This record gives sequence, C-alpha cells and structure tokens, in this order.
Amino acid sequence: MKNTFGQSVAVTVFGESHGPELGAILDGMAPGIPVDEAFIAHQLDLRRPSGKISTARKETDPFRIVSGVFEGKTTGTALTILIPNSSQHSKDYAATRALARPGHADYTAYAKYHGFEDYRGGGHFSGRITAGLVAAGAIALSALAGKGIYVGTHVAQCGPVADAPFAADEETLKQQLKDLNQRTFATLDDDAAQEMTRVIEKASAAHDSVGGVLETAVVGMPAGVGEPWFDSLESVLSHAMFSIPAVKGVQFGAGFDLTCGYGSQFNDSFRMEGGRVVTTTNNNGGINGGISNGMPLQFRVAVKPTPSIFRQQETVNFMEGTNADLQIKGRHDPAIIHRARVVVDSMTALTLCDMLALRFGTDWLAPTQPTQE
Amino acid sequence: MKNTFGQSVAVTVFGESHGPELGAILDGMAPGIPVDEAFIAHQLDLRRPSGKISTARKETDPFRIVSGVFEGKTTGTALTILIPNSSQHSKDYAATRALARPGHADYTAYAKYHGFEDYRGGGHFSGRITAGLVAAGAIALSALAGKGIYVGTHVAQCGPVADAPFAADEETLKQQLKDLNQRTFATLDDDAAQEMTRVIEKASAAHDSVGGVLETAVVGMPAGVGEPWFDSLESVLSHAMFSIPAVKGVQFGAGFDLTCGYGSQFNDSFRMEGGRVVTTTNNNGGINGGISNGMPLQFRVAVKPTPSIFRQQETVNFMEGTNADLQIKGRHDPAIIHRARVVVDSMTALTLCDMLALRFGTDWLAPTQPTQE
Amino acid sequence: MKNTFGQSVAVTVFGESHGPELGAILDGMAPGIPVDEAFIAHQLDLRRPSGKISTARKETDPFRIVSGVFEGKTTGTALTILIPNSSQHSKDYAATRALARPGHADYTAYAKYHGFEDYRGGGHFSGRITAGLVAAGAIALSALAGKGIYVGTHVAQCGPVADAPFAADEETLKQQLKDLNQRTFATLDDDAAQEMTRVIEKASAAHDSVGGVLETAVVGMPAGVGEPWFDSLESVLSHAMFSIPAVKGVQFGAGFDLTCGYGSQFNDSFRMEGGRVVTTTNNNGGINGGISNGMPLQFRVAVKPTPSIFRQQETVNFMEGTNADLQIKGRHDPAIIHRARVVVDSMTALTLCDMLALRFGTDWLAPTQPTQE
Amino acid sequence: MKNTFGQSVAVTVFGESHGPELGAILDGMAPGIPVDEAFIAHQLDLRRPSGKISTARKETDPFRIVSGVFEGKTTGTALTILIPNSSQHSKDYAATRALARPGHADYTAYAKYHGFEDYRGGGHFSGRITAGLVAAGAIALSALAGKGIYVGTHVAQCGPVADAPFAADEETLKQQLKDLNQRTFATLDDDAAQEMTRVIEKASAAHDSVGGVLETAVVGMPAGVGEPWFDSLESVLSHAMFSIPAVKGVQFGAGFDLTCGYGSQFNDSFRMEGGRVVTTTNNNGGINGGISNGMPLQFRVAVKPTPSIFRQQETVNFMEGTNADLQIKGRHDPAIIHRARVVVDSMTALTLCDMLALRFGTDWLAPTQPTQE
Repeated sequence: MKNTFGQSVAVTVFGESHGPELGAILDGMAPGIPVDEAFIAHQLDLRRPSGKISTARKETDPFRIVSGVFEGKTTGTALTILIPNSSQHSKDYAATRALARPGHADYTAYAKYHGFEDYRGGGHFSGRITAGLVAAGAIALSALAGKGIYVGTHVAQCGPVADAPFAADEETLKQQLKDLNQRTFATLDDDAAQEMTRVIEKASAAHDSVGGVLETAVVGMPAGVGEPWFDSLESVLSHAMFSIPAVKGVQFGAGFDLTCGYGSQFNDSFRMEGGRVVTTTNNNGGINGGISNGMPLQFRVAVKPTPSIFRQQETVNFMEGTNADLQIKGRHDPAIIHRARVVVDSMTALTLCDMLALRFGTDWLAPTQPTQE
Repeated sequence: MKNTFGQSVAVTVFGESHGPELGAILDGMAPGIPVDEAFIAHQLDLRRPSGKISTARKETDPFRIVSGVFEGKTTGTALTILIPNSSQHSKDYAATRALARPGHADYTAYAKYHGFEDYRGGGHFSGRITAGLVAAGAIALSALAGKGIYVGTHVAQCGPVADAPFAADEETLKQQLKDLNQRTFATLDDDAAQEMTRVIEKASAAHDSVGGVLETAVVGMPAGVGEPWFDSLESVLSHAMFSIPAVKGVQFGAGFDLTCGYGSQFNDSFRMEGGRVVTTTNNNGGINGGISNGMPLQFRVAVKPTPSIFRQQETVNFMEGTNADLQIKGRHDPAIIHRARVVVDSMTALTLCDMLALRFGTDWLAPTQPTQE
Repeated sequence: MKNTFGQSVAVTVFGESHGPELGAILDGMAPGIPVDEAFIAHQLDLRRPSGKISTARKETDPFRIVSGVFEGKTTGTALTILIPNSSQHSKDYAATRALARPGHADYTAYAKYHGFEDYRGGGHFSGRITAGLVAAGAIALSALAGKGIYVGTHVAQCGPVADAPFAADEETLKQQLKDLNQRTFATLDDDAAQEMTRVIEKASAAHDSVGGVLETAVVGMPAGVGEPWFDSLESVLSHAMFSIPAVKGVQFGAGFDLTCGYGSQFNDSFRMEGGRVVTTTNNNGGINGGISNGMPLQFRVAVKPTPSIFRQQETVNFMEGTNADLQIKGRHDPAIIHRARVVVDSMTALTLCDMLALRFGTDWLAPTQPTQE
Repeated sequence: MKNTFGQSVAVTVFGESHGPELGAILDGMAPGIPVDEAFIAHQLDLRRPSGKISTARKETDPFRIVSGVFEGKTTGTALTILIPNSSQHSKDYAATRALARPGHADYTAYAKYHGFEDYRGGGHFSGRITAGLVAAGAIALSALAGKGIYVGTHVAQCGPVADAPFAADEETLKQQLKDLNQRTFATLDDDAAQEMTRVIEKASAAHDSVGGVLETAVVGMPAGVGEPWFDSLESVLSHAMFSIPAVKGVQFGAGFDLTCGYGSQFNDSFRMEGGRVVTTTNNNGGINGGISNGMPLQFRVAVKPTPSIFRQQETVNFMEGTNADLQIKGRHDPAIIHRARVVVDSMTALTLCDMLALRFGTDWLAPTQPTQE
C-alpha cells in the first residue's frame, strides 16, 4: 500500500512539508491503551531539530488527536493525529522547482507525478512527515511497554566516531533502552555524543553533511513471532526501516560482519537459563528462520549524509532537459542521524504491534487481557 | 501474507524439504509471456548444489507446470509449478527433532507451530523451497527481458576474497549481467571465483562454513516506479531479499559506506545524456525518495555462513527444557553464497514485475502492448 | 484492512459521531485530477439530512483538504479531507450506554472493544462517518467522469412504492445518471419521489421507520476489468456496498429474480453494434465471470429501515447482564434511503477507480495520459 | 488479490478445466488441526455432478495433499491440495473459441487476456476450479467444528419450489446443519428436494436450465468478530460468495425483505438467556454494525440458471467482430444449485477462519489452546 503499512495494526501517513497539516492514522491498535499526550510530545521533541547542529527552521509540533481516543484510552478504532505546519514562505520554491537537488526526490517525483507534485520543501517526501509516524509510534511504544516489551535506538556511529555497544545482559540492556529515550543525542557513551556533535559541527562549517549508523534493540519480545518466508521478521522490519527517508542499509545481528567469518564463530548456541531457552551470543539478532527466538531483537540502520549541502552542485533542469547548476538556499541539517533514531523506534514499535496482533489477536496488546466472548 | 508476496504480480511458495512435492504459484503475470522451460531448467541448475563445494545430496529438479500456461505462453491466470522431491530417508530426523540446531529455525518453529511442524530436513524452512522461487522467477526474468530490463547478481565477496566491481557504464553492465547468468560460480573476475572456491573448500575441510556478499544490478528500469513511503523500492526489495534464508543484511548503492563520508562525496549529480536524465555516480543505487531514477538499481545482500557445521555444538532439547550437545550428521554445504545468487535474481525479478504492473497496469509486461479496450 | 479499502486507489475513514473531526484519506489517486470543492460540497449536501423526513440535527458539513491537493489538482499522494463535527451534547449518552439499541451496534461494539468504544451517538459506527466517504468519493466520481465513466443511483423502491426503471439505452441512461445527481430525492419518476416521501412521513408519524432499495448504474466502463475469482467485480463492489451502514443485500443485474426463471430467459445475447460488442439484455449487470463486459454495470442494494424508532423496545443492559426496556430519545431519521444513495455512488466510484488503476496503471485516470518514462 | 483470498488464513486457487491438475493452497491455518481425508472426499463428492440432473462428464476427484500436513495434522504452513483432471478431449473447443457463449466469460476473458487465455471448457473460469475450494474448505470446516462452530447450507428455493425454513432454535438448527451435510440434494424438507429435482429434470427436457437460492447458517460464532467499516462480516462474506461462479445476489438476515416493512417489525430485540445475550428474532442475520452478535449467522445467495443451454443462441465472433449463431454441444448441467451449496459452505468456513484468526490470533483454531510463549 502506498501510504498505509501494516496488516492488523496499520499506520497511514499524510501531509506535505508546506501543507496546512500533516499527520498519521493508527488503525487496529487494541482498545484500552492509555494515550499519554505528554509522552507523544516528548517523542515529537526528540525528532525536532534543536541546537546548532540542526536546522534553524522552527518546527513547533503541537498536535491534536481527533479520533480513536475516548476518555484517555484507545477505542480500538482509527486513531487520527493531526500536526499543523507553521506558516511557511513558499514563494522561493517556484524558481528552482525544475532543478533536481542531487540525492533528493525532485526528479523521481516528477517522473512519477508528472509535475503535479507539491514541490515545496520536498512536499510529501519531506522528512517532516515522519512527525506523524513518531506520534503514532509513541502509542505503539506505550502499548508494547504495557506488555514488557521495550524498544530503543542509539547512534552507533557518526562519521568516524563509534558509540559503546549495547549490553549483552538483558536487564542492563532494558535499562539502557529506557535511558536512551531520555537523551537528545542518543548514545550509550556520553563522550561519543560530544565527539559526534563535533563531527557534525565540523561538517556544517565545511558546508557539508554526515550520516551514521543507528542500532536498535528490543527486549521482551516473545518467541514465535514472524513467518518463515515473506513476512519474516527481518522482511517486515526492513520494509518499515527503508520507508524512513535517507535509510540505505539495514542489517540484523552481526549483519554484514557475518560475511567475513566462519559458521563456527557466528552460530548462536542455545542454552537453558532460568527455565527459558536463550542463546549465548546474538549474532542472528534474535531471529531464526524469520521468527523471533525470545532474545533481544537487534539491528542496524544506515542513514546517509543529508543530501542538502551548501555548495554549488551540478544537476539538470528536468522540465527543460538541460544541464544546470544549483546552489541550495535556506538552512538545512548537516546531520539527521540523531533525530532519525526516534523515527526508527517508532516504526519498529508499529511493526511489532502489527506482528504481535497478527500472531496473538487484536486484544493481546490491551493492558488487561479481556475475557474472550 | 504468510506464503504469498506481491500485490499485482504475486508469488506463493509451498512445500517441505521431505514432502512429496514443493513449488510456487506465480499469479497476475501479464498474458502472452513466452514460457521457456529450458530457461527455467537452467535457472534451477544454477541453484542446485554441484561439485565438491556443495552438498552431495543429489537434487534433481524436474518440474512441471500444471496451470497458467497455454500453448507455451502465460495465460495471465495463476501459474503453478510443481517440483517433486526425490525420495528421502526421513528416519534419522526423529531422534534429534528436539535438539535445536544453532543458527537454524528448529526452536522458533516449535515456538510458533507447537510441535506440529514438519521437522525433517528443515521442513518448510528448508532452502530447498527456494527452488519454487527460482522457477517462478525465471518467468519474471523473461518478462522483464522482453521489456529490456536485465537483472544479474555476482558474488561480490566470499570470506576475504572480493570480486571486481560492476561496470559503471550501462552497456557494459548489461553485458556483464547476461554473462553472469551463464556462470556456475558467478563472479566478474575468473580468478576471484577460483579463490573463493578455495576459501570454501578450506572451510569445508575444517568442518566449518563461510558466507558472503551478493551484489545485484538491474539495467533498463524506467524512472518513476516505487512509492515515497511504505512501498519505497528499497522497502519492497528488502522485504523480498530478507525472505531468502540466511540473508542478514541489505544495502542499496553505497549503503553502509555512505555513513563513513560526507554528503559532498555521495550526492549523485544529475546530468543530461543522450536526451535522458542520468546521474554521474550511483551512490543511491538508482533510487531517490523510494522511486527509481532510471539509473541501474544496485544493492548488496549479506548471506551468513551456513549454520550446519560438522562440529559438536552446545544447544538445548526444547521439548525437555534441558541443555544438550549436538553433532549434525549427513552432508551439508560449506557455503550457499554461489547458489543463493539465482534466488536473489529471482526475488528481484518477481518484485520488480509487481511494482511495474502496479505502476503501469497488468498488460505492461506483455510482449506486445495490446490495444486498450 | 479495518478502516482502509482498496489496493491501488485506497480510502481510509476515521472519526466518531461526537468527536471533534472526522474524515477520509484518498490514497493512490492519479495526479492531475481537478479537485472541485463546489462539487464535494454538493455531494455532502446530498448526504445531509434535510426537510421533515430527516433528522433535525443540524449537520453543516464544512470541510477542508489538508494534504494531497496542490494548485487545485490531486498530487497523487495521500489526500486528506477533514470534516469538523459541530458541538454535541454528549451528556445524555452515559445513562443509557449499556442499553443495546435493537438493530444497532452497541452490543457488538462492546463485545469487540470491551467497553473502551466511544459510545456517544454511535461513535465510530455512526452513519455520520459516511460524510468522509462522500467527500473522497466526489473526487473519484470526477476522475471517472474525466474518462467518460458515469455513476448514478436512484431510489428504486421505498416501502411499497417503486420508481421507474433505468433506461436500457446507454445514452439515455447516461443522461439519467447526470440528472439524478441534481435531485435531493433521487428518483427517475417525480411522482414516485412524492409518494415515497409520503410513505416516510407516515412512518415518522407512526414513530416508525422504513427502508428501501437503491439501484446503481455505471456507463462507460471498459471491458476487461475484474478478476475471475476472488476479486470479481461483484466481489469488490459488494465488499464496498456492505461497508455502508444498514445495507443488508446486494444483487447484480436481475439478481434474485434470476432464480425464478430459466436460463433461456436470462442469458444475455451478444451482438455487434457500431463495431462494438454489446448484449441485447443486461441480466448479468455488465459482468460476466467477474469481469466487466462493457455494458452498463447495474446492481441493487437493500437498505434496512432505520433501527432508531420512537417506541419502547425490549433489550438488555449488557454491562449488568439484565433485561431492560429502552425508549430512544432525541430526533432520528425515519428513513435514510434517500441520503444513502450518494454514499453508494461514492463507494462505487472509489471501488472502480481502484480496479481501473490496478488494471491499467496508476496514471490511467489522469486527465491527459502522460508519456511513459 | 487475484487468486488469493484472506489475510491471516488465506486460500489460493489455480488450475483450468482442461489442464493436468488444479487445486488450492490453504495458508495460515492453525497448526494441529486433524486432516480427515475421508471428509475431504465426502465434500468433493457433494460437489460432483451425479445422477441425471447433472452433467454426464465423469469427474472423479482423487486428490493428494503435497504440503502442510505432517502425521495427519496441519503444520501451520502452506497446505497444498492437488486434484488431477481426467483426460479431456479438447479438440472440439478450437472451432468455436471466438464465439462468446451468452452468460459465460468467453468474451470478458478475451478482453482481459487478449486471446492468451486457455479457452477449453471455460479454462480458469470453469466451475471445476471450485473443487480446490471445497477441498480447502473441508479443512476449514473441521477447524471450526473443533471450536463448536457449525456451517451448513440448504437449497432454500429452486424454480418455484421453496424449502422449509431453518429452525429458529439454535440446538435444532445445529442438528439441521449436520444433517444437511449428509444429503446429496440439501433440503430440510424431503418433498422439496423431490419437487426441485422434477423442476430441474423438466428444464433439462426443455433444453433449458434453472437457478435457485441457497441459504446458509452458522451456529456457535462468538460475538465481536468483524469490523465496523470495510471488513464488516457482511463485506468479507459477500466478497467470498461473489467469488463463486453464477452467484448474482447475497443478502443477510431478512435481506431485501427488510425493505418492504417497518423498523418496528425488523429490529431484533435483545434478551438475556442462560446468562448470554441473544436476540428474539434474527432479521439482521447475526450481524450488527458489521460485527457478529453471537446469534447464528444467516444469509442467502442467488445462483443464476446455468448459462449453458442446448438451444441455438445469438452471439458474436469476438475475434472477427461479426454476429454469429451458437449451438452449444456436449453435456451440461441444467442446474448447479444443489452442487453449489458445498462451495458456499467452503467459502463461508474459509472466510470465518480468517476473521477468527485475525481477531483471536493464529492459534485460536488449534484444537488445544497452546500455552503462550
């Protein structure tokens, strides 16, 4: 589906960078999930640009929920979140509308929508649209937490700087995930955050941009969720991740590193621990044969450097079919890696809610398991 | 969907490693596509283990098409391909059925199917099931070739050995893709294939296994295919790739390498060339904003080392909830990377047929564009 | 999908009777379709209760489009229409929330949503939600009209009164469809509308309600749309029709009448006419084997009498598990048949846009067929 | 989807009238359901033509299950049933392939598949394909019965003859449903079956054909299944019913009769009975607001007279664009109503399994509710 993702729990996004409102619909979520507006606001804040390493465009994200919530809880029907855009100066876009910004979707949008696309500020392709995903994702994260399932993401790498790795121990990991959610620049190691910030500032000063790697973990996931073939947990999670703008790679567990060694190094041995099946390592990222094995889900997402840079670039005027030079104006982020992580958390939570509801039914995520009719 | 993938052109797989027959249904393909049984057989041969670097289990792959083909051409309705399994000795499996092979799906299958799963030889999780995908994919590849779209994959890396890169020039690349399809061990550089074979043989001798990286390219893809959000071309292609057993990573264009440099290095500049919009580099793998830009699609897939190794491994008896040791018997591949590439080609072709049919209609892939009613 | 319908062109509805806003998202519509706000308003007016045969609850239907339209035309991305609810008095609902209104969804909503449902005024089950469908449907109707496809519905029967039948001649029929769209009470015969109105008034005076039969026709539909099996045109159209509250029957062509006669009476003979294949009768409603045959689509929809009647009724208090008596208060429609027809037109148009886009591609409905990339 | 129906439990059909094999895949069924091959054979027998009121074409229906069953029980993965076609004489079809049989899909198949369709004996449109649905449906019926849910259908009307109505009492109704499954010509009243047989024989003697009305009931359905809007239980059931060849109408509860009376007559009052919510009448067919209310589901399906009649008919040669006369040869059924009922049972069961699995999870239909991981 074009703007809808999910089978039992589904999210739909809509809006454009310079339209009046954007948002999301969260459909099929179990009834009775408390909707914590402060937590939604907190999540939207994590996504918002802030400080000098992010664009100065002031995005305030007030939001309102116009359906699907009654007396503070989900009703189980379509939940609609609207986020108004603050007034934009759109006049500057018409002049350069046919100049394809390198690394952006201007030309491909034209090839698909034949010039009818809203080209202002990236239109429907704008990263701004992820605000809707983050708001819907906040409710999905709450629902999962109610079942003891926690999701979190850190900036594992930015430029040449690497963060500390996730803890192998599940209890420690769970605490790390909760802590990460409180951080504006989400690293496990404080020094890493500072170094990464310097990398970004340096890129900014050089009129350039950087990308990075996000690493996500999920603890508390029950075993037995996912499908052997087309709806493998890797398939649906990667489908969700590659929906996020600027994501160009996804790997589970040891991922591409698995290709550099031997089976004997990477096979995760099973052991009994406290009456439960565990693995002694987690090179498969908590997934065997497309199905969760009860260990933490773990995966990495590659985020490319922001394509908007303040240098003259070669391009084409795709309406005239001529070569052209382009100098992007305005203010743009020299990095989005620190903001993208909350989008990754959100899409992860939405995807897992869907997979869990498909597996265990639409009531499973409800805080108290209701008696079956 | 569990065993069905695709919206307009869809593939369904079925079967188990030790069942009587396995296969696939290809549904929604345009009518009138010539079905070349020799090409299907060729593709199945590429997937078959052969020589000393593959398992000695003799898999002959006769197949028969029982629906959807009439007078040698696709009818446009469900096309069913059946592949019989040769007789298997299944008795040995019962003894170890509760011992989870590390890196395999035995335990997760149990968590999902509660012991009712066919556990013999991996059952429905077996790589053998990919034979159905390859047979269906052969028809998809033919359909694409009829429209000037070519798909090919090489073993870009195996252990420490790297193959030569794909050509940047589209005509040369197209020839490379055609050549790769003729090779049993698909590399661009002959020496690389020999070195990789030695790596695999060495692993085999050490009772171990290796993985590798496959790189795929597609030339001739029209611009304007894919969606900005949930059905981005990256999303649907990665969904397909992660359906393939042992795949643990997918990246498009420069992928994870994009995270180590600057925007100024990786932005693909647009230029006019022969009246057509092209990019001077292809770090985005032919996709901007989720939509094809007309350049070759390019992506890499990480295949983990075969988990079946001939060493004693620690595991659990998941039915008894006890620790156990496991020594896998029989013959198993020390590597599947050289066989997996044709599965990657097949899933790529099936996915692109679907995306093209959604975009341009169900007749688009037909050899001669029929007059619209 | 729960609140989303369609594969290539999809509609999503959201909102509750007493929530702040309701609406719909129209996704996947071709780019470049002119969006005529006056026509949307006109359609919403046709759905609104008016005069003494409809409820006095004043529903003004201002609406605003917050995404997917740029410079007056569809962009091709998710198009969101919001319709605010006027302020409601909701206090009266709490007292009777556990008394299941006979013929309504109060009890089934409770069985599904466990008491978390918004019970005020029917909540998400309210017929009021169809306003979103009508607004989205207006754009679908415009898109179809741009391709020479016209949809229209008349009140074929209300109580004992029958309307005149649709014309057999296609040109006359097309004119009838256009005329119907201008009528508040859509009949082909003016006298029938007056008699039906008297039937409704009489029911209202008796504190009772009536239903009726709507008949829809579509002219200009190309042959070759629909699928032999699960997405037969009948299947998808009936799926859409039964989504409309109070619909309890759907039949195509001669429908249930076909069961009372002989094959020799009902087989529609084919003939050439003006170089085109036609049928001399249309007992199959323009569909053979699930696929359009180029003749007008024709089907009938049974709308049950409004379940809200001003009489004491027997029911249960489903929260206490006791029998109870119920006297519905407020003002309610003694009939909705004359308002439902525009909902039928809307769902028909949305469904056909989807089927046409699946068949001929996402650009087919665009006013000017763009050159293929 | 074209040949696949269902979201959590899905069925895929394939095959042609004169191809080597046809069949179905049942995917997503809970693991552990006993597969009773004798019951599948029994169901296939109910679908087979027999006696003088059905075509003399000898259809023996041996079948084999090639995947998804292990040790006599469903595994939970794709279950494939193959049914070989006995050898057919196909030569006679080529001569008349361009003559559209009135009431059949020959012309619409041509409009959709451009002449590549297998035209022999109706090809993929043949009623013969329903054998696959019946075989898959048998397993769905078994699964439902294991949960106390029973499905049954009687020939409510054939020509001018009406059968006795279903019992209002649930226990009696359940017994009726079980009895119907043992009858070749499924009526509640023996005399009705005999009279209907005479009607069919008379039509046959007159080289004509008749249709009829099937009525289906389901007892034991839990309340709370279905969706308020697009996946209303009526929507998905009608979608399934209209997939069956020759079905032209579907109505729930009192259906079109609801349009002839008053709300006060048809509102089903709620009452407590044995601690359970029931309705005193069932004019809504067990569904309120698209959701099951715990009362028996009840609906009627209109089956048109078989279009193959032994009279000269007017038609066109659609390849030459000329008028033509057609005299159908061979042997054909003067009625299929008595055979279609088992197809209706099957599609009903498949649809309900899907809706129940979506609602309560993929394990719900399993005989013993397994402990959740």
